[in-house]
Amino acid sequence: MKIKNPFFKKINEIKLLNICKALNVKNSDKKTKIIGINDLKNAKKNEISFFNSLKYLYLLKNTKAKFLITNIRYKNVVNKYSNALIVDNVLKSVGILTNLFYPNALNDLIDFNIDENNIKKYKNINYGKNVLVGKNVKIGKNTSIGHNTIIESNVVIGSNCSIGNNIIIKNSLIGKNVTILDGSIIGKKGFGFFPDNKINFRYPHVGMVIIKDNAEIGSNNTIDRGSISNTVIGNNTFLDNQVHVAHNVNIGNNCIITAQVGFAGSSFIGNKVSIGGQAGISGHLKIGNNVQIGGGSGVIKDIPDNSRVMGYPAQDIRNFLKKNK
Amino acid sequence: MKIKNPFFKKINEIKLLNICKALNVKNSDKKTKIIGINDLKNAKKNEISFFNSLKYLYLLKNTKAKFLITNIRYKNVVNKYSNALIVDNVLKSVGILTNLFYPNALNDLIDFNIDENNIKKYKNINYGKNVLVGKNVKIGKNTSIGHNTIIESNVVIGSNCSIGNNIIIKNSLIGKNVTILDGSIIGKKGFGFFPDNKINFRYPHVGMVIIKDNAEIGSNNTIDRGSISNTVIGNNTFLDNQVHVAHNVNIGNNCIITAQVGFAGSSFIGNKVSIGGQAGISGHLKIGNNVQIGGGSGVIKDIPDNSRVMGYPAQDIRNFLKKNK
Amino acid sequence: MKIKNPFFKKINEIKLLNICKALNVKNSDKKTKIIGINDLKNAKKNEISFFNSLKYLYLLKNTKAKFLITNIRYKNVVNKYSNALIVDNVLKSVGILTNLFYPNALNDLIDFNIDENNIKKYKNINYGKNVLVGKNVKIGKNTSIGHNTIIESNVVIGSNCSIGNNIIIKNSLIGKNVTILDGSIIGKKGFGFFPDNKINFRYPHVGMVIIKDNAEIGSNNTIDRGSISNTVIGNNTFLDNQVHVAHNVNIGNNCIITAQVGFAGSSFIGNKVSIGGQAGISGHLKIGNNVQIGGGSGVIKDIPDNSRVMGYPAQDIRNFLKKNK
Repeated sequence: MKIKNPFFKKINEIKLLNICKALNVKNSDKKTKIIGINDLKNAKKNEISFFNSLKYLYLLKNTKAKFLITNIRYKNVVNKYSNALIVDNVLKSVGILTNLFYPNALNDLIDFNIDENNIKKYKNINYGKNVLVGKNVKIGKNTSIGHNTIIESNVVIGSNCSIGNNIIIKNSLIGKNVTILDGSIIGKKGFGFFPDNKINFRYPHVGMVIIKDNAEIGSNNTIDRGSISNTVIGNNTFLDNQVHVAHNVNIGNNCIITAQVGFAGSSFIGNKVSIGGQAGISGHLKIGNNVQIGGGSGVIKDIPDNSRVMGYPAQDIRNFLKKNK
Repeated sequence: MKIKNPFFKKINEIKLLNICKALNVKNSDKKTKIIGINDLKNAKKNEISFFNSLKYLYLLKNTKAKFLITNIRYKNVVNKYSNALIVDNVLKSVGILTNLFYPNALNDLIDFNIDENNIKKYKNINYGKNVLVGKNVKIGKNTSIGHNTIIESNVVIGSNCSIGNNIIIKNSLIGKNVTILDGSIIGKKGFGFFPDNKINFRYPHVGMVIIKDNAEIGSNNTIDRGSISNTVIGNNTFLDNQVHVAHNVNIGNNCIITAQVGFAGSSFIGNKVSIGGQAGISGHLKIGNNVQIGGGSGVIKDIPDNSRVMGYPAQDIRNFLKKNK
Repeated sequence: MKIKNPFFKKINEIKLLNICKALNVKNSDKKTKIIGINDLKNAKKNEISFFNSLKYLYLLKNTKAKFLITNIRYKNVVNKYSNALIVDNVLKSVGILTNLFYPNALNDLIDFNIDENNIKKYKNINYGKNVLVGKNVKIGKNTSIGHNTIIESNVVIGSNCSIGNNIIIKNSLIGKNVTILDGSIIGKKGFGFFPDNKINFRYPHVGMVIIKDNAEIGSNNTIDRGSISNTVIGNNTFLDNQVHVAHNVNIGNNCIITAQVGFAGSSFIGNKVSIGGQAGISGHLKIGNNVQIGGGSGVIKDIPDNSRVMGYPAQDIRNFLKKNK
């Protein structure tokens, strides 16, 4: 399901010529117009995609994208199925291209369109003092918004939600009957960038945070929005205090995430997963359904369904407890 | 010592008939009235208590409560000393009953009675900009309250306290000469609920946070209030930044709790305990007096007085350091 | 390089007689005036310094300080090179003396000189609602300040900075092109004190936080200022969310510090150091250049240049992964 992202204004089309200039790629094609950037699987003919590892060869074979950003190593294989645009650093070039299509994506730290008076137009909601709301915000009926809370432009909040005090919400779609506790920061850009000796290159984040129905987010949490895809908190999933969820993390339904847990970027967490306090989940992992992860664990590899793990690195909980008797 | 809790309005009495209806228990007694819910030890004759484990048989034998919530397993033993109300899930039923007696306990996220003008009536205090104070708040002399701080209704703050900026205090009794640093959130409900496939059942939290004289709470801490009992920070105990204290935790006097430490629910920490950064203390533990816990430790069992431990799981510090030389 | 500290007003000179009274040291010298307190290496003739360990004998031999706080153990060695002021607790006495010279250093929790109107005088900046700014604050051009943010008196912020919402900055010098994300608390006093049975003795913190050009500080971070020296975040160093940096920590240039990392006090981190999520760095350590520290690690000893470590305690990453296969 593709959910419309109302937060980042996209340029409709850019000439391939201008893209190649920005990426420092030789090109004499003056006519072709590109309408966007996308992954190998979903890219349309006139979108650009990228190829960075033979792991994705099966996707390359079927890609519709006519142009692919890649490096010299993959030039020949890419040219079999598409047209290679050869760059030094593939991911950095993807970042540069994303910036071209979403010129406002990096400049999102403060929403200067918010105002204390905007909240007054909403009916059938309760709100506290100094609530600052941006433009085109949607708030469902019977929802409460606490004191000093900031809701930035285009955010959508469903009905029957309780949004506490001192909260900041941006670039987020929030379902029905969701509770967000005091001091949480939802939807800021993720910690993604390319290191550089002088000034690091900030990767644009044009994804959102999606919080589904009946979820609860504890106090002083930080949930970063996705880079190209979204960060998702599933239905009826509860997060305790001081939890950190990095960009592109996808947490399933009915999960229980205890205090001070941290998720590095892009991991998928199944349904009915419970995670004890202070555990850490590394990036790009797949945690199955019905998994229990003990407090303090450090998870550095995929965990299959129905497992119980503990330890650093996390292992079968019986082994962990036996070893440490 | 029983400290009066001014935060949650209690219903004076409920007919046993109505309680049984809410718990789905058969009952034909139309006369008996129940005046509250309490633990086995402290329950009066006309309060309801509960029995959930043979560990508490010694308390059962002396309980004054005429009615006890329990499950089919303990029916006979309970009926020897009291009258069993048989339910499927004892703790969930206790939650439902607590909700009956304290109907506002779950609906506490935002205090809409707070106002910027309320602070003006206090004499001999200093306060910053945009301080929001609720009804019936008590603030002792020579206390300072920082900018944008929220003090909800019925909170009590002693004299000579320093309450910083952007702080939220609710359901809390705070002693004299207490310092609370910027961004901390004190007294919100704990992370206690019964998981359910559709919508988790929120356990009501009718306890308080009690912070005793000369204590210091660092920045961006979260200290949750107790469920039925209280969360306590002892005299002259200092907490560093980003510490999380879950519901019902009881920290003794003269403790030193370094940054990013986390306490799961209901643990008792003795006096003169020092805990290094990022250590985690599991729930329902008893940590003795004069205990030193090394940074990064994961404590998963009780620790006797005068111990020095480190590791995950925490063990005698000499063993830990020897093993890891 | 000595950077001027505009935050703590220093008394110009105090009679040795009064110092000795405060420290409970016998003294009959009524004439000598002392102009400050400093470390062994940098102390001038009429500043007081202190000696607490034979480790620093080489500095003692060349100190210019005419008076040194020490204890009875080091009386003779100190008197060879300087004049011993004998106390029971050297560090506590240094704290008392620092308090004498900087009488406002402990009383800094709230800046009552800040006001919503102060921001209006700055040209060529952008600012949100309810921005509270103190006296003598400097803000460079093209800098943005978000909603509800507090900038206390004498803080310096360079040009082209992005300071987000709900941020508190005090006792800090911030360079150019620095980004600080929502909810961070920069420059509060560190967690340094001498435990006492009745009321802990707070060590004054008269250092600053220095954040250099092109650095980025994530959301809900806490960065404490130094005690006598400063806490430093280097050029182009990026911190993720919920990071804690204790007093006197010095982080080099081009470092990458992932979410929920914690630094105990007074450690030196080299350049191009990357630290994975939730890792902890103990106090008083030296981490070299080009070091990579795996997520969840607990670093309890110095790490040489170009190392890759992981584990608790941290060890060579190949050993850690081999052991835990």
